[in-house]
Amino acid sequence: MPSDKVLVIGGGPGGLEATRCLADLGVGVVLVERRNALGGMPIQASYAALTHDFADAEEVMNKMIADIDNRSEVSMRLGQEVTACEGEAGNFSVTLTGSGNGSAEKVEAGSIIVSTGFDHFDPGRETQMYGYYEFDDVITIADAEKMLKADKFVRPSNGQAPERVCFIQCVGSRDRRLGNEYCSKVCCGIASKQSIEVRQKVPSAKVFIFYIDMRMYGFWEQEIYWPAQEKHRVNYIRGIVTEILKKGDRLIVRGEDTTMGRPMEVEMDIVVLSVGMEPSAGTKAVSKLLGISQDRFGFIETPHGSLDTVATSNPGIFVAGAAAGPKDLDDTISMAGAAAAKAAAFVRRGVGAGV
Amino acid sequence: MPSDKVLVIGGGPGGLEATRCLADLGVGVVLVERRNALGGMPIQASYAALTHDFADAEEVMNKMIADIDNRSEVSMRLGQEVTACEGEAGNFSVTLTGSGNGSAEKVEAGSIIVSTGFDHFDPGRETQMYGYYEFDDVITIADAEKMLKADKFVRPSNGQAPERVCFIQCVGSRDRRLGNEYCSKVCCGIASKQSIEVRQKVPSAKVFIFYIDMRMYGFWEQEIYWPAQEKHRVNYIRGIVTEILKKGDRLIVRGEDTTMGRPMEVEMDIVVLSVGMEPSAGTKAVSKLLGISQDRFGFIETPHGSLDTVATSNPGIFVAGAAAGPKDLDDTISMAGAAAAKAAAFVRRGVGAGV
Repeated sequence: MPSDKVLVIGGGPGGLEATRCLADLGVGVVLVERRNALGGMPIQASYAALTHDFADAEEVMNKMIADIDNRSEVSMRLGQEVTACEGEAGNFSVTLTGSGNGSAEKVEAGSIIVSTGFDHFDPGRETQMYGYYEFDDVITIADAEKMLKADKFVRPSNGQAPERVCFIQCVGSRDRRLGNEYCSKVCCGIASKQSIEVRQKVPSAKVFIFYIDMRMYGFWEQEIYWPAQEKHRVNYIRGIVTEILKKGDRLIVRGEDTTMGRPMEVEMDIVVLSVGMEPSAGTKAVSKLLGISQDRFGFIETPHGSLDTVATSNPGIFVAGAAAGPKDLDDTISMAGAAAAKAAAFVRRGVGAGV
Repeated sequence: MPSDKVLVIGGGPGGLEATRCLADLGVGVVLVERRNALGGMPIQASYAALTHDFADAEEVMNKMIADIDNRSEVSMRLGQEVTACEGEAGNFSVTLTGSGNGSAEKVEAGSIIVSTGFDHFDPGRETQMYGYYEFDDVITIADAEKMLKADKFVRPSNGQAPERVCFIQCVGSRDRRLGNEYCSKVCCGIASKQSIEVRQKVPSAKVFIFYIDMRMYGFWEQEIYWPAQEKHRVNYIRGIVTEILKKGDRLIVRGEDTTMGRPMEVEMDIVVLSVGMEPSAGTKAVSKLLGISQDRFGFIETPHGSLDTVATSNPGIFVAGAAAGPKDLDDTISMAGAAAAKAAAFVRRGVGAGV
């Protein structure tokens, strides 16, 4: 007898939204999250405001968590991870193991939604050209979120407010040397959002963004990119940064201003590296356990391309969010709803297995 | 007694996908389309291949149409349009009027999904600087799709194969003068896709793309942008085009190469204007009839931003696709699934009205 339950793996925005949509449809959900808390990357990495609405990340995630709390349709499994999967669409039997205590449990599910997310690119991997592990004042956009959330955007080296801050785009993205040829999609928006927040919190600071192309697609253009320039006086410079050095207690950013066509050497107090997305360890591990295909980067493949954004290579298994490649929050929320619709149709009526 | 049916307005990719998801969930759908044929813009405008998969647009749309054909859950209303709406979430009473014969019918629906799409920007509106209505060899990306689909990419003025072709990006987008401050999101991808197709069909032609930022986000980067340059030898030039003139039987494109920092004057045989998205007439009309809020551009507002991509200002009414702003095909398909999940939950269980 097929199971009419859906297993949702991952308690970030995608997993929470999929869970809520399924519960709203009256479908039983088992939500498993490896950590002991829900909320995913925005909570784990202490995000400040979300792109593009500038909504408070903690408030938003708490609301998403509250929306599924105490729902009769939802069983939570926190601090547990998927360690085995048997069976097939309609009759998956998934082993969950306690991350702490090693306890094991088998869960039956007719369908599975994978929402295991991404990791931030590690800017020390294979390159030290930006000096992330050498210089205290070289940070990442993830570090900057933490500082903005703590309302303390200061130089890590000396605790003082910065006079000059720059963002370097495409760190770990659009880079064949690293094997990450893809664009990570959200970093232009995040750097622009953070640059506005820095200007608001440290009005005396000058802020620069060094970029190849500003990928402020759709409404990000007039909602973030134009106000950043016109209202908040953020300086966008089309250029390539080749190295970062130390000079006295400041940083020197060397490269080329490609619009002006001349070499560039500027002093900065804080350099923020706009690190891209990579598939999370959880995404890679779960893909192998479930036997679903990954692309050459390790993201989960969606073989039907644009025409089915959530089906994986295996019937009955769907994906939502950045486990399937670089996604913004809108993408993740839309995919989660679509995955919920398809998983529900499959466990309820045996249609739309997705392959 | 509330209706358990959903009215889907618009028979393009978003409306078709929403209809299929609802039918898969066992929900009754009335699908209304103003024209006498389904398929939406890809069929109406004779698109060749879809971005980013290069799938044949007609084949894809025919498959989407076949997927909902003869489904017991689906009632079609072709050649009809919404002319009035009364009632509220759970009990909408919508008048459909025959576009041809003026016949009228009332349909009861518990929820509505609006998928009324976009129009291509008219490059003659408020500006003649690109000479669209003056010069035969100045065309739009929509015109280029038709020519590529007909496998006849020739100069309209003389029927000969072009030696030099250029695309001009951001026509009708990122433009305060026109009131279209937003980025239309898909035109960089479409121009890049078309430039590859032109190089394949007319291998002797040189192809140039004049752009401000190449917004080849996510996997479009390595799937289209890199192959366009490396395999198909498309020339990307960061520059601003200020006017197009005629010289003999060729076109002169004047502007500035912003990377080289010098004025530019080049001869072309065909100039393709990458026109952006505007809300369709149907989107504007339906929004007014349903009483849902539009943004200042006329697109349908989604008041919850990133956290609910499909809810409109009115409970029980959802939106999918470019009726809500510039969207790519992935966005539209994901939104359609999410809208279906929410509309189904609402008509079935009275939860998740969306506001």
